Amino acid sequence: MKEYFKNNEWLIIEDGFDPDYNRVAESAMSLGNGHMGMRGNFEEAYSGDSLRGTYYAGIYYPDKTKVGWWKNGYPEWFAKVLNGINVIGIDVIIDGLELDLAKCEVTDFKRVLNMQHGYLERSFVATDKNNHKTQITSKRFLSMADSELGAIAYSVTPLNYTSTIKLTPYLDGKVVNEDSNYDEFFWEEVEKKVDDNSCFLTMRTKKLGFQLTCAMTYDVLSNGEKVACHDAQKIAKDNYVGYTVEKVVEKNEQLTLMKYFSSVSNRDYDNNHLGMKATEAVNRAHRSGYDVLLDAHIAAWEEKWQKNDITITGDTEAQQGIRFNIFHLNQTYTGEDQRLNIGPKGFTGEKYGGSTYWDTEAYCVPFYLSTASSDIARNLLVYRYNHLEKAKENAAKLGLKGALYPMVTMNGEECHNEWEITFEEIHRNGAIAYAIYNYINYTGDKGYLAEYGTDVLVEISRFWADRVNYNPRKDKYMILGVTGPNEYDNNVNNNWYTNTIASWTLEYTIEALSYLKEEHQTIYKETIQRLGVQDHEITKWKDIIKKMYYPYIEDEGVFAQQDGYMDKEQILVKELDQANLPLNQKWSWDRILRSCFIKQADVLQGIYFFNERYDLDTIKRNFDFYEPRTVHESSLSPCIYGIIASQLGYEDKAHEMYLRTSRLDLDNYNNDTEDGLHITSMAGTWMSVVHGFGGLKVIDNKLHLAPFLPKVWQEYSFRVVFRDCLIKVIVGKQITIYLEDGELLPITVYNQDYELKKDQPITI
Amino acid sequence: MKEYFKNNEWLIIEDGFDPDYNRVAESAMSLGNGHMGMRGNFEEAYSGDSLRGTYYAGIYYPDKTKVGWWKNGYPEWFAKVLNGINVIGIDVIIDGLELDLAKCEVTDFKRVLNMQHGYLERSFVATDKNNHKTQITSKRFLSMADSELGAIAYSVTPLNYTSTIKLTPYLDGKVVNEDSNYDEFFWEEVEKKVDDNSCFLTMRTKKLGFQLTCAMTYDVLSNGEKVACHDAQKIAKDNYVGYTVEKVVEKNEQLTLMKYFSSVSNRDYDNNHLGMKATEAVNRAHRSGYDVLLDAHIAAWEEKWQKNDITITGDTEAQQGIRFNIFHLNQTYTGEDQRLNIGPKGFTGEKYGGSTYWDTEAYCVPFYLSTASSDIARNLLVYRYNHLEKAKENAAKLGLKGALYPMVTMNGEECHNEWEITFEEIHRNGAIAYAIYNYINYTGDKGYLAEYGTDVLVEISRFWADRVNYNPRKDKYMILGVTGPNEYDNNVNNNWYTNTIASWTLEYTIEALSYLKEEHQTIYKETIQRLGVQDHEITKWKDIIKKMYYPYIEDEGVFAQQDGYMDKEQILVKELDQANLPLNQKWSWDRILRSCFIKQADVLQGIYFFNERYDLDTIKRNFDFYEPRTVHESSLSPCIYGIIASQLGYEDKAHEMYLRTSRLDLDNYNNDTEDGLHITSMAGTWMSVVHGFGGLKVIDNKLHLAPFLPKVWQEYSFRVVFRDCLIKVIVGKQITIYLEDGELLPITVYNQDYELKKDQPITI
Repeated sequence: MKEYFKNNEWLIIEDGFDPDYNRVAESAMSLGNGHMGMRGNFEEAYSGDSLRGTYYAGIYYPDKTKVGWWKNGYPEWFAKVLNGINVIGIDVIIDGLELDLAKCEVTDFKRVLNMQHGYLERSFVATDKNNHKTQITSKRFLSMADSELGAIAYSVTPLNYTSTIKLTPYLDGKVVNEDSNYDEFFWEEVEKKVDDNSCFLTMRTKKLGFQLTCAMTYDVLSNGEKVACHDAQKIAKDNYVGYTVEKVVEKNEQLTLMKYFSSVSNRDYDNNHLGMKATEAVNRAHRSGYDVLLDAHIAAWEEKWQKNDITITGDTEAQQGIRFNIFHLNQTYTGEDQRLNIGPKGFTGEKYGGSTYWDTEAYCVPFYLSTASSDIARNLLVYRYNHLEKAKENAAKLGLKGALYPMVTMNGEECHNEWEITFEEIHRNGAIAYAIYNYINYTGDKGYLAEYGTDVLVEISRFWADRVNYNPRKDKYMILGVTGPNEYDNNVNNNWYTNTIASWTLEYTIEALSYLKEEHQTIYKETIQRLGVQDHEITKWKDIIKKMYYPYIEDEGVFAQQDGYMDKEQILVKELDQANLPLNQKWSWDRILRSCFIKQADVLQGIYFFNERYDLDTIKRNFDFYEPRTVHESSLSPCIYGIIASQLGYEDKAHEMYLRTSRLDLDNYNNDTEDGLHITSMAGTWMSVVHGFGGLKVIDNKLHLAPFLPKVWQEYSFRVVFRDCLIKVIVGKQITIYLEDGELLPITVYNQDYELKKDQPITI
Repeated sequence: MKEYFKNNEWLIIEDGFDPDYNRVAESAMSLGNGHMGMRGNFEEAYSGDSLRGTYYAGIYYPDKTKVGWWKNGYPEWFAKVLNGINVIGIDVIIDGLELDLAKCEVTDFKRVLNMQHGYLERSFVATDKNNHKTQITSKRFLSMADSELGAIAYSVTPLNYTSTIKLTPYLDGKVVNEDSNYDEFFWEEVEKKVDDNSCFLTMRTKKLGFQLTCAMTYDVLSNGEKVACHDAQKIAKDNYVGYTVEKVVEKNEQLTLMKYFSSVSNRDYDNNHLGMKATEAVNRAHRSGYDVLLDAHIAAWEEKWQKNDITITGDTEAQQGIRFNIFHLNQTYTGEDQRLNIGPKGFTGEKYGGSTYWDTEAYCVPFYLSTASSDIARNLLVYRYNHLEKAKENAAKLGLKGALYPMVTMNGEECHNEWEITFEEIHRNGAIAYAIYNYINYTGDKGYLAEYGTDVLVEISRFWADRVNYNPRKDKYMILGVTGPNEYDNNVNNNWYTNTIASWTLEYTIEALSYLKEEHQTIYKETIQRLGVQDHEITKWKDIIKKMYYPYIEDEGVFAQQDGYMDKEQILVKELDQANLPLNQKWSWDRILRSCFIKQADVLQGIYFFNERYDLDTIKRNFDFYEPRTVHESSLSPCIYGIIASQLGYEDKAHEMYLRTSRLDLDNYNNDTEDGLHITSMAGTWMSVVHGFGGLKVIDNKLHLAPFLPKVWQEYSFRVVFRDCLIKVIVGKQITIYLEDGELLPITVYNQDYELKKDQPITI
């Protein structure tokens, strides 16, 4: 699959059509604008293999849980990202024959995703059974400037004939989720209307009553000139509205359909107003016209790139890879809506369901902190605050105090149903506390503790304090029966990372309470009272901090991933016959579990989070021990190892890890891009450049950098937002740092302090 | 639910109809004869809650596996016991109104299972909407003397009217499994025929092509006198055949339908002959007539009871309980067919699927060894021998050498799909080796090693030798990532029981090979060559035996159930608020896993199996430590604890454990009798009396007894078959032992040796 797409700095190019890779290309070429998104499907009918998918942020379906053997505590349902109304569809009938790329000869096929300007183009020549050759081009986008809108310019040009061509732009609500557990159709039709000027369709989800209304209108152009279509046929069928326009088209005449569409839902408007709102929106689009809409869209993208582009000179593949990651992150989440989060597949597929994993806190928050206004990361934190009550219910369901945030969620309730993950991968709770620390450390917004943070910290701490058990035989607190970040070990005792982040949460919560007590006395009193925090709780927390047990491998001088890790047969990945890799496809689950091989950063995740606690020798010993045992079969692994490798000066290893993460989906590295893209790990890719190669850290309210240039690159640059400043860092033979926004920023580079001033770049 | 059924030494009596308990009564009153079985359903139509179930030994369906998250190594399908042709159905129409107990007033209802003679009787008066009062009686059995046959006497007597009564005896193949994963209908019709004299129906299972043919015929009697029915209407519909007879019945006239049915399948006959064979069988039944058939059936039951009845004087409840267990064991498995085994629900329900668990080797083999000809236990062993190749495939699937017998199976292939059980509950493999030892120890049939046993032992040993891993840091062999018999702990390291039985298997295999070498040199050479046994393998086995690691709790002087067991919070069951019990209904799975509570005998299972290895002090320390931590939430637990309690002289505890096991289903103790009966644990009940109270053991080819009388009983007796002798043991104020069959049997009672002779009972 490697090199299926052409290398280009800004474009993802599919040159020639290969039906076997269609789903992969559909995933890679997905469009999204935070409000909605869709895979890179064809507008016209296609009877070949395809996952037609259109997804609307925040609209989901609680699908009945499917398990082999029920365990007490499992959730009743699994929230699925809902495949909704297809807005891009345009059926094309040429001289009575439906255009279908599976049923004609296709030449000069190109599908191109323009990442700079955020649109998808396609062009090809189809030769049908009648030997009619037809040139097709299409270009579509979902507006970044007005997220309810999108538009398509779809052109048909007869190359060797003159004939009647029928175009049917439509909205289709009869859409099913491919990953439905019991083949249920999740929607029902509520309303539809087909007027002379526009039409709309309202569908409602069966259980939760989400209502989604899409509207559309269109223009027809001949050789670029608008033509009247008074005889358009209106179509209204079950779950479907549209129009058919018909025209005799001369040889070489270009017939263009401009399709404008909009989507609104009862997440934002009253049910009664949806038809009106969608129609207003589509009229807004139509009034503006395609070109004006597109210009505004491009401008919005340029503004985004201005903040978070990373350039790499001398390696087009690497350049394309990093932009692909940043592009899709920007498409998935724009941060305006506190109710939303970053799904593992974004708007690019259905797999995994849910919208929120600990990936958000561990990987995405750092990206948004550095590349966008701090509101956006803050919204991600508030999202969890808003789910606090559900997290308390979740803990209670397991018989525990405090709050346990779910492994996977849409509305705060747990969706996951595998006991070793659902009940045991509880380190996720620590990541949610850590994100609060991380946000405040980066932004300096300590006020967040007073407003939202402390409630979440206290309840998570209560969970940990109940979940540990005191072992009188060893005078230690332990955490038994957990799954750490390395999911290739399940139900272990005393996962070092979990014990570490649990104890750290207690420390940080005590610190947060102290801060409130000193700086916000009224809020402090109110908080203590509201949460009912008792002195004996704090005493217990302090005792746990003091007596937490951390497994250690004495003779290696490294933290033990968990109790008994060294009882496993110790083999290094390089000693394995490579035919065994990837383990998750070649080995039975049982064999994976018994082995010493590690799926993703586990001890190293802790060393990344709590980096300042450990001296370089300790970090080195742990890296040297664990990295050779890690197979990086989670998309979230290489970035963390890459960052630590950078810190240790293992430049080649850091670059190797970067390559593993940045082109994961473009090169279909894990052979699963067809299901959708690995959205959250894309933030990890960004981190591997900025935190890794760039050495970015924030210590004591100050930005630290320690950049190096991977050997194979000539130069790279990145921008980061920090405390109302925007800086640009160029790393080449020398390092140049610009302050692009803001007046003055103290900064530390290679442990030396500088004052960065506007128009006075530092060169090192 | 306790006391729903009336106490009676030989009868299970439901007095008065309670629709809410109908499923429970249907389970308890199941009939079976090893060849087929059915729940205690009504013959006539019933629209209330019921699980109509008829099951045919060895006919199963591979239902598509249902899991939430697929793991490499899971089986594609789960073998379901198939609900097949309903042979008991008789529709009754009285003056145009269908008889349905859910739609009329029911008085004087009695459903009675006669365990002594193996039949089910029912009688009631129904008052319908027309105020017609009708007396119904029915009595049916599945012949123990001729297992293809069964018969029903069904009588209808108008009590306050004269009217037309229509009776429709039928065979219905449109039967679905309630536990189907995807609501599939597993059967298709092959053939049917309705003659003047008899009819038959052949159904085929969709996947494996099992063909089942049932035939029926009938007589009609008025006040006990046969009447001609020339105008009977023949019925042949999809998946259905039958007859309707119609007669004007006078007030107080008893109209009786004698329904004879037969079942044969392509497990025993050619597909082409099934209709003929079933018809021949039903004609055989018809020629004999109901009374002659029933007499032969009763005689067969009397012979069974002669060998395996246990009498208890002074406690009707206990007497009824033990007979209920023995009765259902005899109905489930008769031992003539090497292809069959003992399903967890027998012919009484559908839950769990499969037919064979390690229950067979651990619990059922001892029962059949002592209560039947040794062929029967031998057949259970040969069943596993016949699955050896599949067990090797199963091990290979997990990447391991040798043979891993499945957790649940029908044809040798694994059906279970929960990683912590399927892949990890590997101690089952040891039980299969142990059963070979147990059989030979009991019967003295060492020749079994030469014929079948060694192959199985060698391949199981190879599995263990590959599954252990050598830990050079401790110079010990370990077994990581297992689930022991206590399924309330999953994926643990070094389960003491598993390590013990693994090492024991290696020892016993070496012993078996030595025996062959000494006693059967030709077979030995042939075996070594056929299996390719290498010297270095034996060397490795010896090294593992020598260096196996056994976790131990020093300060308690007990074996540790697994690594880290003592890191758990140590609480005793009696210290728990009893509202928490049963844990498996009250606690989340996660909480159960983290707790120290034990579902069923684990360390104690090892102490039971390898009893002679441990001195009484060691056994006592382990019992005293583990019993207070055990919740006995497996039906297989109390019998083992009961036996060890008996050995330790804990007589009250032994009696308490007996009560827990013997009336489990009768009193619906676990609130799940509606799903079917716990057939395999019934063998454990028998063990708790004979091995427990009776203290039966076989040491060095000699029968040992050490009986005691539970305080609340006046007397009990049991019979056991041992080496062609049948002895009867009566335990009252004194102990009397009779040799009922055989001439002379050396026997040890309370460690004192006796010579037991025919007609010279020993009294102690």
